[in-house]
Amino acid sequence: MSERRGPTIGVFDSGFGGLTVLRGLLPLIPGAHYIYLGDTARLPYGAKSRETVARYAVSSALYLQDRGADLLVIACNTATALALDDIRAACSVPVVGVVAPGAQAALAAVGKVPAEVLVLATAATVQSHAYHAACDALGLAAVEKACPLLVPLAEEGWVDHPVTRDVLRIYLTEALAEASPDAVLLGCTHYPLIADAITAMLRELGSDARVIDSAEATAQTVAQALSKAGLMVADSAGEATFECCATDSVEKFARLGSQFLGRPIPQVELLDLGG
Amino acid sequence: MSERRGPTIGVFDSGFGGLTVLRGLLPLIPGAHYIYLGDTARLPYGAKSRETVARYAVSSALYLQDRGADLLVIACNTATALALDDIRAACSVPVVGVVAPGAQAALAAVGKVPAEVLVLATAATVQSHAYHAACDALGLAAVEKACPLLVPLAEEGWVDHPVTRDVLRIYLTEALAEASPDAVLLGCTHYPLIADAITAMLRELGSDARVIDSAEATAQTVAQALSKAGLMVADSAGEATFECCATDSVEKFARLGSQFLGRPIPQVELLDLGG
Repeated sequence: MSERRGPTIGVFDSGFGGLTVLRGLLPLIPGAHYIYLGDTARLPYGAKSRETVARYAVSSALYLQDRGADLLVIACNTATALALDDIRAACSVPVVGVVAPGAQAALAAVGKVPAEVLVLATAATVQSHAYHAACDALGLAAVEKACPLLVPLAEEGWVDHPVTRDVLRIYLTEALAEASPDAVLLGCTHYPLIADAITAMLRELGSDARVIDSAEATAQTVAQALSKAGLMVADSAGEATFECCATDSVEKFARLGSQFLGRPIPQVELLDLGG
Repeated sequence: MSERRGPTIGVFDSGFGGLTVLRGLLPLIPGAHYIYLGDTARLPYGAKSRETVARYAVSSALYLQDRGADLLVIACNTATALALDDIRAACSVPVVGVVAPGAQAALAAVGKVPAEVLVLATAATVQSHAYHAACDALGLAAVEKACPLLVPLAEEGWVDHPVTRDVLRIYLTEALAEASPDAVLLGCTHYPLIADAITAMLRELGSDARVIDSAEATAQTVAQALSKAGLMVADSAGEATFECCATDSVEKFARLGSQFLGRPIPQVELLDLGG
């Protein structure tokens, strides 16, 4: 085995959704090695309290730092929205979340201020108003809408399904009564799986808002943070590599996770973070 | 404060659903004191592995035993189905689960063998086939159907809602293609909240099966177990009392839990079980 030259990047999510962020990262930084941690034993975070989410996220981030990560990506909207400050305070390496890159991506998509952004997210993310603050800092007005049934529907595999369309019709009708958005930001890493259904329902309801996924924008932010920290190795070459860890069933992680990552996950390591 | 004469009974669930069992217990055993523990920081259990559910359930059961419980009620179908033997091995007090009482209640309702029972439950409970075994021991043929969207729909408060009816139509049509049940057993403590919708959909689909909730049957089994263990105090009188503990937000527990218990929950104690 040749000596590793590129950076080691820890990617954390409560479950599988953050693999959509890893998917965006893999082609972007040659020579990097990724350690992905899904806290599947304690998921979902989206309906839990700030204190509990912060405790779980900090323990997971510290684990990845101890495994040698040079930089951490919090690829979970709820953990970023509720606990980014706690994670940064606990860790000594740079930490990138998904909320600020998501707001940046929305700004890039609408290409103007003022503009209105509809953020679809978990109940906990909405209650934190983290997206509201991140959008406000860029001159964007955010309307935040909690969509608690979208994660279970995506996990049930009802991606192109009449029930999912009915649920989207209800959530989006409620949201569009309060907003005339220029962009709709997917504020949960599960939602890219039903992005097509979200776009179709927006059109049905008369909105031409563009649907924005923060995964690609987060990947760009990671590349910038690596450069800034002097971790981007100029002569790195070759495909990036990754390994996956989970706190619950590794078989289920490999099976479901490959849908989010878009490629097979050959091996998953079972972790006990004490939960 | 007068000296307590009745037994102390620990009631455990992953969240709020077990409060429907506590609701059945409260009027049944005068003088009893109940300690209810909802492991809300780590819920839901229904899609997790046997190993993880057993670890969580055993730690919760030991906590209740250490708090002085004379008997434990595992008021969670998933924890009973996956971990009842582990809990009994770890604890020294009698442990009552919900699966065997549920099967008994189904037998009492149909009043004959052979008979066919449709069990609606979480994915983990179905995969364990615990209900199949419990029904088989009584001469009942069980068909088990996983209904992963029913808990999120009940928690969203969509109890009498067209989307919930559509989801039930899909699940029950699939199940009735494989079974002609004499009874439908609610194998998850969340489902009593949508029992009326389940009954109405069965009738729409041409089934006259009776819908059975194991909460009352579990309460009767607890009374018998207390007698057998010599813990039923003959001169106990007065209303039973209860206290509630949760591992996540106590405000949310008090608010949501009162819907399941059918009465206000004045105070909830926050626990850290190390998760």
